[in-house]
Amino acid sequence: MPHIALSNDLPGITGLMAHRPDTAGPLGDLADALLRAPSSLDPGERELIAAYVSRLNDTEFCSSSHGAFAAAQLAGGQELVGAVLADPGTAPVSGRLRALLSVAAEVQNAARPVSDEAIALARAEGANDTDLHDTVLIAAAFCMYNRYVSGLATELPKDDEYYNHAAQRIVADGYRGGILQED
Amino acid sequence: MPHIALSNDLPGITGLMAHRPDTAGPLGDLADALLRAPSSLDPGERELIAAYVSRLNDTEFCSSSHGAFAAAQLAGGQELVGAVLADPGTAPVSGRLRALLSVAAEVQNAARPVSDEAIALARAEGANDTDLHDTVLIAAAFCMYNRYVSGLATELPKDDEYYNHAAQRIVADGYRGGILQED
Repeated sequence: MPHIALSNDLPGITGLMAHRPDTAGPLGDLADALLRAPSSLDPGERELIAAYVSRLNDTEFCSSSHGAFAAAQLAGGQELVGAVLADPGTAPVSGRLRALLSVAAEVQNAARPVSDEAIALARAEGANDTDLHDTVLIAAAFCMYNRYVSGLATELPKDDEYYNHAAQRIVADGYRGGILQED
Repeated sequence: MPHIALSNDLPGITGLMAHRPDTAGPLGDLADALLRAPSSLDPGERELIAAYVSRLNDTEFCSSSHGAFAAAQLAGGQELVGAVLADPGTAPVSGRLRALLSVAAEVQNAARPVSDEAIALARAEGANDTDLHDTVLIAAAFCMYNRYVSGLATELPKDDEYYNHAAQRIVADGYRGGILQED
């Protein structure tokens, strides 16, 4: 049961966002800017970074949600997402994405400078400044979203099919527009 | 030296925000919603929570900035801020704020449900659902801002007077309006 009384029984962050539209606005806009706006990383790659950080933080609602959003936008689908969440070191992704996932893991671990080694490896694999900026900020942002969802002890959806329905909405309408639609 | 080339030499998050207005917009709006919009917690109390979490995360730019913003808006000024950052357990704050700072510390520590004990203590001290929601989300958000600022290895200001000038701007104009003004 959540730590606070909500105005609805929606699971995870959707319940919090419907309950508090004042903070939901910027939280949704930030997700759209990070995960869906034009960038040097594909939306599916950015969702994969979000899902991986959420898995490292053990926030099931977010890792399942963003895993489904990644699967819906990547050629490898759910199989690729499962492989990355299990071990990015052996998953069939590009060297650039693998190196960026290592950068994300360092950001998840603590608020300290990413190691020069991780930055150099990502650059050697072809990552540019925009990739590095976006990876660090996505990983940092999911350290926020995960803590919000887990800290307040929100509920999981009753049915895992929820995540696939959510993926259709998010891919079609984005975070600000899609997250609060009825499932 | 920052891990990526910036378009300016502004310190901390101000350099990142001036460099990337696309993500700066929602980041500034979120800070205004969390720290300055009407709430059951005073702006100075919310800045104190932000400064304390930033101190726990060892992100000097953010703890000094939000410490100065708290001091500018609390009767106890910099002395009170210093006492809270050193040890909220003995600082001269209300029982309610002390209990909320404990909730914030749990959120900073990991993305897991805040303990029932910390929630019960905060409620016994008079905290309501809005206080608890805002404390958890402020603490979570500073786990993002701190990782963004520290992860990309941004610079500190050359002079500590910077923080007092920034406080004047933020108190007058807010985060979206005030953070990018020239110092």
